[in-house]
Amino acid sequence: PDEQAHRQAVARHAQLTKPAGSLGRLEELGVWISACQGTCPPRPFARPRVVLFAGDHGVAAEGVSAYPSEVTEQMVTNFLTGGAAVNVAATNADATVRVVDIAVATDTPSLIAAHKVRRSSGAINREDALSEAETTAAIAAGRAIADEEIDGGADLLIAGDMGIGNTTVSAVLIAALTDTEPVAVVGRGTGIDDAGWMRKAAVIRDALRRARPVAGDPLALLRVAGGADIAAVSGFLAQAAARRTPVLLDGLAVGAAALIAEELAPNARKWWLAGHRSAEPAHALVLDQLDLTPLLDLGMRLGEGAGALAALPLLTLSCRVLAEMATFEEAGVTGPTSD
Amino acid sequence: PDEQAHRQAVARHAQLTKPAGSLGRLEELGVWISACQGTCPPRPFARPRVVLFAGDHGVAAEGVSAYPSEVTEQMVTNFLTGGAAVNVAATNADATVRVVDIAVATDTPSLIAAHKVRRSSGAINREDALSEAETTAAIAAGRAIADEEIDGGADLLIAGDMGIGNTTVSAVLIAALTDTEPVAVVGRGTGIDDAGWMRKAAVIRDALRRARPVAGDPLALLRVAGGADIAAVSGFLAQAAARRTPVLLDGLAVGAAALIAEELAPNARKWWLAGHRSAEPAHALVLDQLDLTPLLDLGMRLGEGAGALAALPLLTLSCRVLAEMATFEEAGVTGPTSD
Repeated sequence: PDEQAHRQAVARHAQLTKPAGSLGRLEELGVWISACQGTCPPRPFARPRVVLFAGDHGVAAEGVSAYPSEVTEQMVTNFLTGGAAVNVAATNADATVRVVDIAVATDTPSLIAAHKVRRSSGAINREDALSEAETTAAIAAGRAIADEEIDGGADLLIAGDMGIGNTTVSAVLIAALTDTEPVAVVGRGTGIDDAGWMRKAAVIRDALRRARPVAGDPLALLRVAGGADIAAVSGFLAQAAARRTPVLLDGLAVGAAALIAEELAPNARKWWLAGHRSAEPAHALVLDQLDLTPLLDLGMRLGEGAGALAALPLLTLSCRVLAEMATFEEAGVTGPTSD
Repeated sequence: PDEQAHRQAVARHAQLTKPAGSLGRLEELGVWISACQGTCPPRPFARPRVVLFAGDHGVAAEGVSAYPSEVTEQMVTNFLTGGAAVNVAATNADATVRVVDIAVATDTPSLIAAHKVRRSSGAINREDALSEAETTAAIAAGRAIADEEIDGGADLLIAGDMGIGNTTVSAVLIAALTDTEPVAVVGRGTGIDDAGWMRKAAVIRDALRRARPVAGDPLALLRVAGGADIAAVSGFLAQAAARRTPVLLDGLAVGAAALIAEELAPNARKWWLAGHRSAEPAHALVLDQLDLTPLLDLGMRLGEGAGALAALPLLTLSCRVLAEMATFEEAGVTGPTSD
């Protein structure tokens, strides 16, 4: 982000008809967007865009989710026909949604399968998620998708992830990258019961045993204990930063990918904002590690991008405040008295 | 709020294509709006309306604010010409703003002065804010304004307050009603320095000495240590509840009025939602006492209604989720497996 635009935005905030700092985090947001765009006041986002990465995970067969793997494909159809939470949240925030099949277990319409890497990723508690070539291909797919979107005019990107089993894989990656014990990262995901929680904890423990030795190498980690969808999201997030395009992060799976992306492209996080804090326990580890303070904390845990979209109107508002509020001089309002 | 619509909304959430409870607080919001409207799914708000109550306070002369009293009138003009934060936030959330002069120290356009009670309210550290008749008139004005707005089609109300000195008065009312020591309620308001903070603390201490004996009688409390604007807001909030119209609360001054309104009309708070947590320390006491959990916590402290408006898109989203998402059956998505 641009330091001169940052300074201009801070200075403009001091001239607007409100007590200095009285809009709190909204002021910081507007300053950050100004810096990302390199201009003050910031432009309203012309094309905020959600890319929803879909992929299945072999671990789903271990009973780690309240839903069967078929739901991934069914939800992809639901996204395409506009019936999912992410669609409603996008409409509400004037954003649009693109679905990409990175590793759904079944065939999907060719419309969304151009970047498909494989059918499902491996069951990481007992085998590698991906081959080396697939890992590279998935990251490249995410980078290519970011390029496509930015070249198409997207000026704010949001990644979502859909795939039964994805919180299990995400928890493993996050535990490996933050050196955390398994039990601290096991969440209820889609809403598993106690027996499911114990199965999930066992899978995470086993997968972490495989993951820890390669935790220092992000590509090896994605290959051994990741998944193609998450690898693609990490490429997407890294490329967005390389292209100087701001990103609003969503929940757990995107958070796991963000930790990887920050390894692939150090300081990529300067281009990211945390839309919300997920109810999944491992998400707090992500936010801490990336030093990001979420805008919302509403107990959401969907992962499709709906949490980020719920926060998007705050970004829009923060831009408009800088662009549309009157200054003390314009409004003829007396400034603060010096004491 | 209506229990049958509440139950219908809870049941509908369980049928929508998302893991049960995965939208967290957004689900509760949609249920609450359904219950307020007595229908499920809830209707999108047709006319969300901000009423901004303006009034000066005698304590401003004691140097408790970073701004002189003239700023109240100047900001009223700024609201009318659309240059203030509340105007931008309203536009961003598809709401409209009405300004009413309840007790501005100077004359304002007749357009907004129909409900004016007096010029400024008394300096509560040494005199009563209002006479008994003025107190009654101010509450009645707030009730009448709520009626006007609801009769005019408003289906979601937001109150804001403008008046230099209002955080001092609000802190006194809140301390009196929650039996809190002065030092715990003194905030920086518009951004006073340490010397100003000490002056403000002394004024609050003196006013509280006058307020405590009448803390059990809301009308007497408003008369002795309140202000016409805050009295009007309390009438407005009580009447909104009587008219079964949901309200999104803003910051400190509205919070002080809400404590009074809950005394005037017990359980009025069932019709209220806390838009945000203000950075003012006394606001947390309000939220605790009313048992309201704020939607946003962004360090805002403006009081014009901008904090409530920042949260409004979340309400809109929560309505749309219930109205627009596909059910498992409609989308052909497999529901959760029973274990």
